Amino acid sequence: MNNELVEKVRLARTAARPLACLPTEIKNLALQNVATALGSRQAEILAANAADCEAAKATGMDEVLLDRLRLDMDRLKAMAVDVLAVSALPDPIGEVFDMRTLPNGLLLGKKRVPLGVIAAVYESRPNVTVDIACLCLKSGNAVILRGGKETVRSNRALADAVRWALTEAGAPAEAIQLIEDTDRALVGELLKMRDLIDLVVPRGGAGLINYVRDTATMPVIAGGLGVCHAFVDRTAELAKAVDIVYNAKVQRPTVCNALDTVLVHKDIARDFLPLMATALAKAGVEFHGDAVTLEILQQQPGLNLKPAVADDWGKEFLALIAAVKIVDSLDEALEHIARYGSGHTEAIITENYPSAMRFVNEVDAAAVMVNASTRFTDGGQFGLGAEVGISTQKIHARGPMGLKEITSYKWICLGSGQVRP
Amino acid sequence: MNNELVEKVRLARTAARPLACLPTEIKNLALQNVATALGSRQAEILAANAADCEAAKATGMDEVLLDRLRLDMDRLKAMAVDVLAVSALPDPIGEVFDMRTLPNGLLLGKKRVPLGVIAAVYESRPNVTVDIACLCLKSGNAVILRGGKETVRSNRALADAVRWALTEAGAPAEAIQLIEDTDRALVGELLKMRDLIDLVVPRGGAGLINYVRDTATMPVIAGGLGVCHAFVDRTAELAKAVDIVYNAKVQRPTVCNALDTVLVHKDIARDFLPLMATALAKAGVEFHGDAVTLEILQQQPGLNLKPAVADDWGKEFLALIAAVKIVDSLDEALEHIARYGSGHTEAIITENYPSAMRFVNEVDAAAVMVNASTRFTDGGQFGLGAEVGISTQKIHARGPMGLKEITSYKWICLGSGQVRP
Repeated sequence: MNNELVEKVRLARTAARPLACLPTEIKNLALQNVATALGSRQAEILAANAADCEAAKATGMDEVLLDRLRLDMDRLKAMAVDVLAVSALPDPIGEVFDMRTLPNGLLLGKKRVPLGVIAAVYESRPNVTVDIACLCLKSGNAVILRGGKETVRSNRALADAVRWALTEAGAPAEAIQLIEDTDRALVGELLKMRDLIDLVVPRGGAGLINYVRDTATMPVIAGGLGVCHAFVDRTAELAKAVDIVYNAKVQRPTVCNALDTVLVHKDIARDFLPLMATALAKAGVEFHGDAVTLEILQQQPGLNLKPAVADDWGKEFLALIAAVKIVDSLDEALEHIARYGSGHTEAIITENYPSAMRFVNEVDAAAVMVNASTRFTDGGQFGLGAEVGISTQKIHARGPMGLKEITSYKWICLGSGQVRP
Repeated sequence: MNNELVEKVRLARTAARPLACLPTEIKNLALQNVATALGSRQAEILAANAADCEAAKATGMDEVLLDRLRLDMDRLKAMAVDVLAVSALPDPIGEVFDMRTLPNGLLLGKKRVPLGVIAAVYESRPNVTVDIACLCLKSGNAVILRGGKETVRSNRALADAVRWALTEAGAPAEAIQLIEDTDRALVGELLKMRDLIDLVVPRGGAGLINYVRDTATMPVIAGGLGVCHAFVDRTAELAKAVDIVYNAKVQRPTVCNALDTVLVHKDIARDFLPLMATALAKAGVEFHGDAVTLEILQQQPGLNLKPAVADDWGKEFLALIAAVKIVDSLDEALEHIARYGSGHTEAIITENYPSAMRFVNEVDAAAVMVNASTRFTDGGQFGLGAEVGISTQKIHARGPMGLKEITSYKWICLGSGQVRP
């Protein structure tokens, strides 16, 4: 066992107990200190980030990934705004709910408590370090942060800022632990520490997520993989449908809630497809269409149009590529989504009430949208302040995970001498 | 892969989709049919159970375990009452909650949905077969039941009754699958089926639970291990304390919510211990005491009193044995519980308000009791109708797991053309 790892995890475990009882004012003060530190320590954070970017460039990292890695004044300011938003949210800890008096006079209910120690294993974007640290702090959880090798200097500068903020507020800085050793074997060791870590949240590519799910001995909440569909129903308003599909595909194609496959009802395909293709082509989208789509769009000039292959269905493109398929009915769309969806976000565009209701009821995904962009599945957009990740599993939390989603509860039972008959 | 297993799990998976949308009336009708069948099929169920008991006796099973295995008319009637109680509970599926309108006009909320397919791996008591099948049915989950070898005939008769009840009600009987092959290797195969099974719930001894936790590739909710403490505070009313400790230890010593260790405040030890020892000794309880306990009780005649060894702290006795320790303060009691508790149920007996509140706030367990028996931690007692198990982990569900605890939710987002800025 690596000594740095063991010692840091033990420190976090020890800090978890006082952190669980920390008054809301102190937690909020610490968060306000984080926002302050992102400004006052701007020079050193940006210098550390510049060094990370230099090193990544030297290894040949491409521009898309470099952009995810890069910090600047605006991004630091946006991070500070997010931190203040978390500080303004109600404290989930201590909430008592479902309280009732049983026939025997026992007062029974639930009290919300932190999970304890959360480990986050993630790649790339350094703002994740601050998001997760702040959500864990506000929800009374100690956290072990294990970022990617490419962001180690940025993460160190950011974690230092967060730890300073806790100390200044009189909160236990040991509750935030950053594992700086980027040896991959360390993650394997971390995932064995079931007695010290209550939950592990992997954020990153499918390789990382599958490795964590297969290796971890403690509970895992996995997410990050999003194969998202939009079904343009027979009754869709075409302009609205084009706007939604455009936004879902183009606004930020490299993230998990970006659109992958457009399913189009056959009755409107000849009207809708040319409009959609024109709009998306301007943004540089490449289309992988089924036979009917190709037939409809082949005469249209200036399109990057390819025949879809079997692999295109159920593929997360993370790029300006859209698979397009014509379906005969809502039922066929539901079947396609059930077969190929990853349980992240699915959307219908329709003016028909029964179609909307059937879609909401029958699609099994973390988020189901009617006449809205798939890009809304996000902790910030859903009003959670930020997110630890987006769960695509059904256990514990589904979809964006904010504060409440990283808590548990205990049953409390206030009696006056009751015994069981 | 075993063909019976693969086929049954696939049938359950296929049945899960229609089951998720089944109307409440049909689910309730099926449950009422189960209650009826427990009466009308009484003769064949009891005959199957008698054969199980004969076989178990022949292998030398002791009387305590035989008693857990045995069914009779009264136990069948009690099972039918429990089934009707589940049918009378509100249907958790379809509940829409946390619904709100976002500033951009999106109507956002959550809709409760089944988990999908649940596998239950359990030992001994045959009523568990009916409890779990009925909770899964009501919550729209398909279920794979894998009971112990000793109860295979009873479980087959009971599962047949449940499947008949579903068919009679027009519900898909394939949703309830009993794995009859008792080859242990099958459980290992089952635990690999991550794509087909959403959750596995092991119920039984520590060996089974640890095996499932270590082997399963899908989420596990483990429970069943209960090292329960009662702290008799300095201000406890002695008669109330004796009643609670007696009930917690004696009423059913072989279950997980039975009391294991009594912690006694030093200031009342000389008054309380003789009273407690007299009462519990009448029920045949054996005491494993620390040095001060031994000194106080050694003059008392008729006690089965032994010095506690290190292993007694943190031990689940599942028998008429109580460990007894004198503590100097509430703080020492809290420390002891934090160190040795299993996170199941902990109780304080006190008349002092701050002590009660500190205990409730600081003890980290599925259930925390003030002036009430630990035996109350139970799905039926908590008003959940029955329980799939008692979770001692913090993820997803904690404590008794009834209907709501085996559901998930999806985010639903009703828009009118919104896109993300």
